Amino acid sequence: MQKARLEAFSDGVIAVIITIMVLEMKVPHGDDPSALLPLVPVFVSYVLSYVYVGIYWNNHHHMLHATRTINGPILWANLHLLFWLSLVPFVTGWMGENHFAEIPVALYGFVLLMSALSYYLLSRLLIKHEGTDSMLGAAVGGDVKGRISVVLYVAAILLCFVNRWIAIALYYFVAFLWFIPDRRIERMRER
Amino acid sequence: MQKARLEAFSDGVIAVIITIMVLEMKVPHGDDPSALLPLVPVFVSYVLSYVYVGIYWNNHHHMLHATRTINGPILWANLHLLFWLSLVPFVTGWMGENHFAEIPVALYGFVLLMSALSYYLLSRLLIKHEGTDSMLGAAVGGDVKGRISVVLYVAAILLCFVNRWIAIALYYFVAFLWFIPDRRIERMRER
Amino acid sequence: MQKARLEAFSDGVIAVIITIMVLEMKVPHGDDPSALLPLVPVFVSYVLSYVYVGIYWNNHHHMLHATRTINGPILWANLHLLFWLSLVPFVTGWMGENHFAEIPVALYGFVLLMSALSYYLLSRLLIKHEGTDSMLGAAVGGDVKGRISVVLYVAAILLCFVNRWIAIALYYFVAFLWFIPDRRIERMRER
Amino acid sequence: MQKARLEAFSDGVIAVIITIMVLEMKVPHGDDPSALLPLVPVFVSYVLSYVYVGIYWNNHHHMLHATRTINGPILWANLHLLFWLSLVPFVTGWMGENHFAEIPVALYGFVLLMSALSYYLLSRLLIKHEGTDSMLGAAVGGDVKGRISVVLYVAAILLCFVNRWIAIALYYFVAFLWFIPDRRIERMRER
Repeated sequence: MQKARLEAFSDGVIAVIITIMVLEMKVPHGDDPSALLPLVPVFVSYVLSYVYVGIYWNNHHHMLHATRTINGPILWANLHLLFWLSLVPFVTGWMGENHFAEIPVALYGFVLLMSALSYYLLSRLLIKHEGTDSMLGAAVGGDVKGRISVVLYVAAILLCFVNRWIAIALYYFVAFLWFIPDRRIERMRER
Repeated sequence: MQKARLEAFSDGVIAVIITIMVLEMKVPHGDDPSALLPLVPVFVSYVLSYVYVGIYWNNHHHMLHATRTINGPILWANLHLLFWLSLVPFVTGWMGENHFAEIPVALYGFVLLMSALSYYLLSRLLIKHEGTDSMLGAAVGGDVKGRISVVLYVAAILLCFVNRWIAIALYYFVAFLWFIPDRRIERMRER
Repeated sequence: MQKARLEAFSDGVIAVIITIMVLEMKVPHGDDPSALLPLVPVFVSYVLSYVYVGIYWNNHHHMLHATRTINGPILWANLHLLFWLSLVPFVTGWMGENHFAEIPVALYGFVLLMSALSYYLLSRLLIKHEGTDSMLGAAVGGDVKGRISVVLYVAAILLCFVNRWIAIALYYFVAFLWFIPDRRIERMRER
Repeated sequence: MQKARLEAFSDGVIAVIITIMVLEMKVPHGDDPSALLPLVPVFVSYVLSYVYVGIYWNNHHHMLHATRTINGPILWANLHLLFWLSLVPFVTGWMGENHFAEIPVALYGFVLLMSALSYYLLSRLLIKHEGTDSMLGAAVGGDVKGRISVVLYVAAILLCFVNRWIAIALYYFVAFLWFIPDRRIERMRER
């Protein structure tokens, strides 16, 4: 089974997710700068989520690039990942509108955690399908960065109830970790 | 006539359908967990519809993959299928917002029924175009699963007025039946 | 210059147009059938517009398929067509919400007229680029159906102020005329 | 690394941006022409933004066409450009709804300025990757038009507080400058 349509469909869904998020920034009625003030937390949330969805698109791009064929379970694992990503606009809007209150910040972290776990599941199925001695298997390997992210998300959700800014700092830190796309796969391909 | 653009357009429409459905989950104003409570039925409807649209995308993917060329009537049969799928976000939102009341649940089943019938029509036109002795014809065959689904949707719409939870259980059961993508086509291709 | 990305971008825009139109059908609050009554004209408008956008996609598909290369002015003529099509959701919503009042019906016809003229302009630029003795030039020829449509749209806009149902009947009639995709190009290709 | 998926994803995001902008034109409740009057500035903003997003798509198309391969930083520079473009619907809506008041007009210019700078950054990364003696490097060269645009955007933002119509005239003028797609690249390719 070929991967072209899986890539095209994922591109479509991620393109819509990343774009409709901006619809949560409702156009304010006044025309002075103070009318924009209530939108600042919404904007900050939007930037964070934009970077996260961008990271997923980049890594998805790299991982599928190193893949040759797919199968039925991989189709569903991919839809499962897209499901959690599709909830990002909702939690982004909720977190932004409530000025980073604890519960919305924790729920945001939960959606990031589930996205990370579903990405991990997809990567395992792809490696199982390609073989651990394949280019993909060698490149992804133990996926240390993925495991660290999961630990940090869980920490952020728990620490959120101590101080929510710790959670937000951790979300930004994980985004920073992933900002550089997966050099492992890039490096493998060059060899 | 080549199928590439038909696939690309269908991917685009299905990607938008599956993503704008989440917009029916309006961001609540409060920041405590109880603010999310009224959204629970909307979320449950969203999950069901996400799985259904995912199933259609998967099966569409498989069916078109086994197809070599298309013609004018097939283009329209495909648009007809996409029309019924485009109504899924509306009936999902109505069913969720009214906490699975009878009429919305029945209408939801009606849209699923029409989607199933239009998918069946598309598959017949494709088989007629490819030939019943083609890979596609041999793989889809009598389409027992498709026929069972239609019977179960009709049963669900009728039983909804006895007890709406029977209808919802049937919708989940049909989704479960289809969860595994069409192995028939996959199996044929491997030979 | 290659046409692949022009096709992909047009597919994307048309896929979003055809799908966001359904967002004009706001989910009603009540759960009884009477809650759906005010949506009937919105739904009827949606069906008409869905068929129109589907026709444009089909014909665009056929026309570009018969094209080999494109140039700068063709890119802009295509964006110009997509501009008028992007207004279809707005006029559909206005016509539906006002139960087919005269002015919205006339404006709907105006957007259809401008879409038809911009499609005509695009086809002329394509034929000029490909050559009148090309497959595309021979297939499209004098474009009798396109000219008849323009005359009927103008008639509908004027007759709308006599009786708006005449206009709506004409819109349905033109849609019916175009329902069958452009057999001319299909026929040419078979030779 | 191949550019196909970068193009497909950018097409998807730009297609959604250009189409959801029209959602800012809310369907009015009345059915007489005067109901459309408050929408006139929203429509004028929409046309301007449609042309701008169309220009970016056209130039992006040309620039990527002249590119052979990409790398990680280019993926992020492209996402950075799409980020600023994703804010266009918001500033378009704000400017339109406030009938071209000073602050919204200035913010609109700021988003155009950031889009231009991020496009410039993307073009520099592409040229660095392809080599200055590549087709792309020779074609884009010193990018005089890009530099003039940046100067004019800054001028528009400042002059906006003298007279906002100067700013709007400058926005239209820059759009006019770019209306013709980048002939430099087209011309180079023909050689």
